[in-house]
Amino acid sequence: MGEIVRVLYPSTGGAMRVGLTGPPGVGKSSLISALITECRRSGLSVGVVSVDPSSPFTQGAVLGDRIRLGEHFLDRDVFIRSMGTRGHLGGLARATLQAALILDAAGKQVVFLETVGVGQSEIEIASIADTVVLALMPGSGDSIQALKAGVMEIPDIIVVNKKDHPAAEVTLNEIRSILALDERRAGWDSPLLATNALSGEGAAELWAAVTQHHAYLEQTGLLAARRGENLQKEVVALATCEMQRWLLGRADRDPRLAAVMQRVREQELDPLSAVRAILVEVFGISEADLDADGR
Amino acid sequence: MGEIVRVLYPSTGGAMRVGLTGPPGVGKSSLISALITECRRSGLSVGVVSVDPSSPFTQGAVLGDRIRLGEHFLDRDVFIRSMGTRGHLGGLARATLQAALILDAAGKQVVFLETVGVGQSEIEIASIADTVVLALMPGSGDSIQALKAGVMEIPDIIVVNKKDHPAAEVTLNEIRSILALDERRAGWDSPLLATNALSGEGAAELWAAVTQHHAYLEQTGLLAARRGENLQKEVVALATCEMQRWLLGRADRDPRLAAVMQRVREQELDPLSAVRAILVEVFGISEADLDADGR
Repeated sequence: MGEIVRVLYPSTGGAMRVGLTGPPGVGKSSLISALITECRRSGLSVGVVSVDPSSPFTQGAVLGDRIRLGEHFLDRDVFIRSMGTRGHLGGLARATLQAALILDAAGKQVVFLETVGVGQSEIEIASIADTVVLALMPGSGDSIQALKAGVMEIPDIIVVNKKDHPAAEVTLNEIRSILALDERRAGWDSPLLATNALSGEGAAELWAAVTQHHAYLEQTGLLAARRGENLQKEVVALATCEMQRWLLGRADRDPRLAAVMQRVREQELDPLSAVRAILVEVFGISEADLDADGR
Repeated sequence: MGEIVRVLYPSTGGAMRVGLTGPPGVGKSSLISALITECRRSGLSVGVVSVDPSSPFTQGAVLGDRIRLGEHFLDRDVFIRSMGTRGHLGGLARATLQAALILDAAGKQVVFLETVGVGQSEIEIASIADTVVLALMPGSGDSIQALKAGVMEIPDIIVVNKKDHPAAEVTLNEIRSILALDERRAGWDSPLLATNALSGEGAAELWAAVTQHHAYLEQTGLLAARRGENLQKEVVALATCEMQRWLLGRADRDPRLAAVMQRVREQELDPLSAVRAILVEVFGISEADLDADGR
């Protein structure tokens, strides 16, 4: 796979990359399905990368969902790639990036990235997205509290799905008041939309908001800047994931690491000195560099 | 600070380490306050480390909360340490570990770790805890869906706070059915409790569950095993956080890294090859090691 990406990478960059994140059960897959319909109406080809272990795209299916998505499975201009559900984080992030780049290089005009999220960290997986859409629903109290507390970042677009639920209006008002108080962003006011993904209601407006955000990024020149930043973050995140996996896999086998860990367990070496020992002895970061960072 | 931990580390290990996690707004601080009262009734000295940016312990205070916690601030056997709210992740995790170890070495018999969490990742910060308590409330739909979907791990104890809320019974039933279906755990059935932290209702039962879990860990010999595993995970997590920070901080300054990133931005080098280059060239991981991992 690494080979393929190497060859294809120069041909990437043409696709709109749209991340859709949100807690399990809000209907992210149905929303994507409705958005695909909008894209196809405009004649756009579509790729989907799903990294939600609870998604119907990735075996978490209830039959009804699968059938609903069926129409798109038969469409040659729609390609859906589900990531293995329980890969380790580094592997999953790498596979996601690979799949997104391959779909991009293959000429898909829109690539959707579906990620499950109940907090801020999962949005990082979607750091390859140009536009991040957060999907919530009536009952998403935890996410709303997290937005309010600043624990979760305000995304580019918020959509409340299941808009016909009796509590939808309350939920919309709560989010509206959070957005009204948000002073973190300049230039782009994150719109709040309401959908019923199953009936398709609101999907056209959601797709319009996505294209507006993309146009905003292009007109302001922010698209290139955001992609550059995202790429850097993604490369660093993937590298650290791999290092974490490398360390965990070797903690018992590598004699240097095993010795450090053994000494920590026996309370001869404290954990912070152990971290320093690993950084300096295993990864060759200089003591001076660590001290320069104020450690 | 590193020095202090080095000196004190051999004297640690005596404290019960209790992690309390949950989404913002469920009343974690009030629960800890109620648990402190229980501990003090049993004559136990207490330390608290709070890493919840939305917590009253850490400036996220509404005045009422502060006053409620006031009684404990005057108690010499209760020590409360709030972590800076917006430190970078690695620094926060390190500071948390330091504070917990210092309180442990100082002879506090119980150390509470308060962490905000709306997903699985935040619980990792609490990986220094022997016992993990997840606090939810009526309205915590996202967390309940995440538990159900297996996106969030089942903790050692679940408590539903604000038990007098009209929707509390529904929430308790939802969690009960998730726990009934959970087959992941052997030996310990995570209990489900209900509290009203403000009135103190249910706090005695919650504290009893914590001590029962601790006794279970001790009797089965799992305490040492869990602490060993947690320590290893913590050291690896801290080391990778530091490496991530080091990489991000140097991406523009270090000529090797800057060159790699520049080539990625200009699409001369693909991101996966860039990750490999960083691992091999910057951190000295051998190509053979990477290939052995099936890359």
